Amino acid sequence: SCLSMESPTGVAATPRALPYYVAFSQLLGLTAVATTGAWLGLYRGGIAWEGALQFNVHPLCMVIGLIFLQGDALLVYRVFRNETKRTTKVLHGLLHVFAFIIALVGLVAVFDYHRKKGYADLYSLHSWCGILTFVLYFVQWLVGFSFFLFPGASFSLRSRYRPQHVFFGATIFLFAVGTALLGLKEALLFKLGAKYSTFEPEGVLANVLGLLLAGFGVTVLYILTRTEWKRPLQAEEQALSMDFKTLTEGDSPGSQ
Amino acid sequence: SCLSMESPTGVAATPRALPYYVAFSQLLGLTAVATTGAWLGLYRGGIAWEGALQFNVHPLCMVIGLIFLQGDALLVYRVFRNETKRTTKVLHGLLHVFAFIIALVGLVAVFDYHRKKGYADLYSLHSWCGILTFVLYFVQWLVGFSFFLFPGASFSLRSRYRPQHVFFGATIFLFAVGTALLGLKEALLFKLGAKYSTFEPEGVLANVLGLLLAGFGVTVLYILTRTEWKRPLQAEEQALSMDFKTLTEGDSPGSQ
Repeated sequence: SCLSMESPTGVAATPRALPYYVAFSQLLGLTAVATTGAWLGLYRGGIAWEGALQFNVHPLCMVIGLIFLQGDALLVYRVFRNETKRTTKVLHGLLHVFAFIIALVGLVAVFDYHRKKGYADLYSLHSWCGILTFVLYFVQWLVGFSFFLFPGASFSLRSRYRPQHVFFGATIFLFAVGTALLGLKEALLFKLGAKYSTFEPEGVLANVLGLLLAGFGVTVLYILTRTEWKRPLQAEEQALSMDFKTLTEGDSPGSQ
Repeated sequence: SCLSMESPTGVAATPRALPYYVAFSQLLGLTAVATTGAWLGLYRGGIAWEGALQFNVHPLCMVIGLIFLQGDALLVYRVFRNETKRTTKVLHGLLHVFAFIIALVGLVAVFDYHRKKGYADLYSLHSWCGILTFVLYFVQWLVGFSFFLFPGASFSLRSRYRPQHVFFGATIFLFAVGTALLGLKEALLFKLGAKYSTFEPEGVLANVLGLLLAGFGVTVLYILTRTEWKRPLQAEEQALSMDFKTLTEGDSPGSQ
């Protein structure tokens, strides 16, 4: 399974099935965003910054920022396979900045709405998971920036941190999906109550939205974890990587 | 990152940090099971098969079966590193059988309770995710059994299926954790309603339980995804693997 990663190909062909999986992930992600919009438009009166509709800014921003854009940021290294490492990194970092700003707007919306209505903050499992996700997301961005975009970190330090960054990135993304499902459930039960069990159209639509979000999460994770779909090393990275291996592990090509 | 997997060590030493992570996962998992029991005992009147308490069998069985035991089944290959492959496989399969049976009892409990009370089934996002998880779990067990325990499948077929099995196993486990959080939220909102926002002790305990379940999920996934913690090949597997590589990829040790 490691063989494809290590073979010195230079410019590598894109794996045959990858574009279909990426297209499918985008279809799921965009459908989830559209379904969120449809749910808020059809059953919640639409969106506005003032008044009762301010709450609705929250789910829409969270789904666009912390789910769709964050998911796409994770896929950047799989999709842009032959760009330079630097370009790919900057795109990855930028998508996360956009995701963060949109999520921040969504957070401000719900706290502001609660304040105006005199509701309590941060009592529910949804809010606990949400704040945890948001703080971890911010920390991950800062640490990621310091290690990978700031020029100070050494090649060896980056290599050791990379798997941690990938694991926690995937975890934070999954937390975002799980938190969205909890929030959706909360919104349904507060409004529908016992009517939820009579298969109200809003309940069914929201359940479908939940499955779409979960499906987007699984598809992104699938693309991310296929070893043979990892971004191939470019020529100059290859050289660096070889130097590093020679320095740290001795020159024994047979033991690779 | 692949180096540690491929080096021909025979009987390998256990990685230094691994036992601490495994101990931490078990601490989280057992605390989650105990907290589930405490929640049901303190705030829901305890457990019984007859009457209103039958519902409470459902969360307890699901947390023990589909979360704690399923999680531990995923860790078997990391914990029992120097047992034969066959012993490890059988233990992995057996833990999943126990998990499945306990989850089945939990499922029967809730359907039976709904039937007696005249409640509707399968209307909520929790129930949709739950049924999906349970069906996928059953299919994964059947397919896993056919490929890995049934003697018919070839070495090459097993090698190609293995990463899929691992990915979908981890996904099903995460679905189980997510579904439990949705169910917990549902149980809280149905009973507490608006009182949830006054930081009722039951709400806070259930939120903590939610975080414990999520923490167990993340810890198991972390242990599972560390490349350097993968189970080393035993001597006889090594020989097989080498034969296979020679057959399919030609004899070029340098390209490994």
